Amino acid sequence: MANHNQLLIPKKVEICEVAPRDGFQAETEWIPTETKLNIIRKLASTGVKSMEITSFVHPKAIPQLKDAEEVVRRSQDLTDIKLRALVPNVKGAERAIDAGIKKLKLMLSATDSHSLSNANSTSEEAQNKLEPIIEVATKRGVKVGGSISVAFGCPYEGEVPVSRLASILNRYIKMGIDEVSLADTTGMANPVQVHSILGQLKEQFSMMTFSMHLHNTRGMALANAVAALQQGVIHFDSSIAGLGGCPYAPGASGNIASEDLVHSFHEMGIETGIDLGQMIEVAKGVKQIIGHDGGSYMLQAGPCSELHVKPASQEKLG
Amino acid sequence: MANHNQLLIPKKVEICEVAPRDGFQAETEWIPTETKLNIIRKLASTGVKSMEITSFVHPKAIPQLKDAEEVVRRSQDLTDIKLRALVPNVKGAERAIDAGIKKLKLMLSATDSHSLSNANSTSEEAQNKLEPIIEVATKRGVKVGGSISVAFGCPYEGEVPVSRLASILNRYIKMGIDEVSLADTTGMANPVQVHSILGQLKEQFSMMTFSMHLHNTRGMALANAVAALQQGVIHFDSSIAGLGGCPYAPGASGNIASEDLVHSFHEMGIETGIDLGQMIEVAKGVKQIIGHDGGSYMLQAGPCSELHVKPASQEKLG
Repeated sequence: MANHNQLLIPKKVEICEVAPRDGFQAETEWIPTETKLNIIRKLASTGVKSMEITSFVHPKAIPQLKDAEEVVRRSQDLTDIKLRALVPNVKGAERAIDAGIKKLKLMLSATDSHSLSNANSTSEEAQNKLEPIIEVATKRGVKVGGSISVAFGCPYEGEVPVSRLASILNRYIKMGIDEVSLADTTGMANPVQVHSILGQLKEQFSMMTFSMHLHNTRGMALANAVAALQQGVIHFDSSIAGLGGCPYAPGASGNIASEDLVHSFHEMGIETGIDLGQMIEVAKGVKQIIGHDGGSYMLQAGPCSELHVKPASQEKLG
Repeated sequence: MANHNQLLIPKKVEICEVAPRDGFQAETEWIPTETKLNIIRKLASTGVKSMEITSFVHPKAIPQLKDAEEVVRRSQDLTDIKLRALVPNVKGAERAIDAGIKKLKLMLSATDSHSLSNANSTSEEAQNKLEPIIEVATKRGVKVGGSISVAFGCPYEGEVPVSRLASILNRYIKMGIDEVSLADTTGMANPVQVHSILGQLKEQFSMMTFSMHLHNTRGMALANAVAALQQGVIHFDSSIAGLGGCPYAPGASGNIASEDLVHSFHEMGIETGIDLGQMIEVAKGVKQIIGHDGGSYMLQAGPCSELHVKPASQEKLG
């Protein structure tokens, strides 16, 4: 009964800040490159170890990220942090590597409907397009991580069978990929499901490093993160100020806010290496610059550690 | 390893709707008695098994609930649902029982600072005032449940030692109380703590029925609920549309929204006996009547089960 009263979870995690990619791409109003770089530098100063700083999609698809090369080129002095960029195809990969990025992240949807909507290919077709990207990266000495969007539920198709995830992971393994981000793209995952799926996948793919990319669309992101922790997952994506809305539910919450995830992890006794106070300050600044947040509890209520002054006296009532 | 992939949680829970007390009391604008009763009836129609419908505090302390007698009196035909009222003292208990309530809930803070602020007594003094309330209730055949506010953290004092909770629970047991609501009044609990504290308390007080009253001030309420489920807790409070703000953080989220909790539980395969669709409709109506919500994911994004129409065709981009 020694562990009966203790949640068995890791003591240390690594968080990847994704706002410069997943957050900014959801903003319709142009964010100047200088501002983007300024935010990236402020984020780097919080102690976060890893950041997804842009995406090399076609500028017509996401005009907001048309400055991807410049963002990567001018971030090259940030040597204390692992920078990565999302790439949808070989051309994007070449642009990213030319600009100086050392790590690429691949895009892939678990379902055909989402893949068609997002990448204009079925999931199978999209898988076939990954190999040449990896070849280019390998040739040029750049690391590649995989991802699976809508891994825990698709807004068009609903439930995603775990066999579908296993099939994609097998394909990733054949291509030499050893880390994959599992994305709950539209916030459909629940803790029981996350715990069960991760348990199965970690048994079947014991050499794979999984990371969790959780959206808080239905308020379950933190509970899902805890379920993932209970399966030994230590890599999590999050987005400053919760930036990155849900295209299917305008106004709904986006990515779990970095400051909320870090606060919760610290409260739970988990090390992140991040300075929470500084991160909350950055979140405030980002909210001011962008004009809104994407759902952030810290920006509303502040951390638990901020105690209130004890009441001096009370009026008798009741 | 049979359970390695399965979160060990109960298959069925009982939710107590607390908006008519904890939600309404936070509203400064008068809600007419007729409207309150209308909402209570709509809530009862969702299938919720238990409801805290008002509080018999002094009308000067909470003018919003000055119609407590009338609310109780005119709810007496709702015989399919367990109704309870909060009472702060003997006079409140007598008023409540005279009006026809069959169950009382006691108020008690874990810390002196919160108790002084809330009840103008130290926690010890407040405990001494409970016995006469229970005597009155017992004499008149009315059941009494206990509660502990700020059980997982106090906005004035910070950490609350588990020994403090144990001491209060021992006092409750001496008074014949066998069910206690543990309240995270200002959203300071985290899942590791909830799991650990409940584990200890359930070992020490095996005959006590615990229920969880979780505020979502810092976004941890659902994760805390899951941690409580993992310790076998099956009683939860929640508030329609998340009503019931945090007096220490204006604008911050209040109680976990009933529709969010029910949605999450259903997604996790847990039975609540509640019709989620109907509950979301009630939440919409309540938001319209009250003029705002207190943080509700369902009102922003809708349930996971509401799928989107598959995209018919896509334009080539990228």
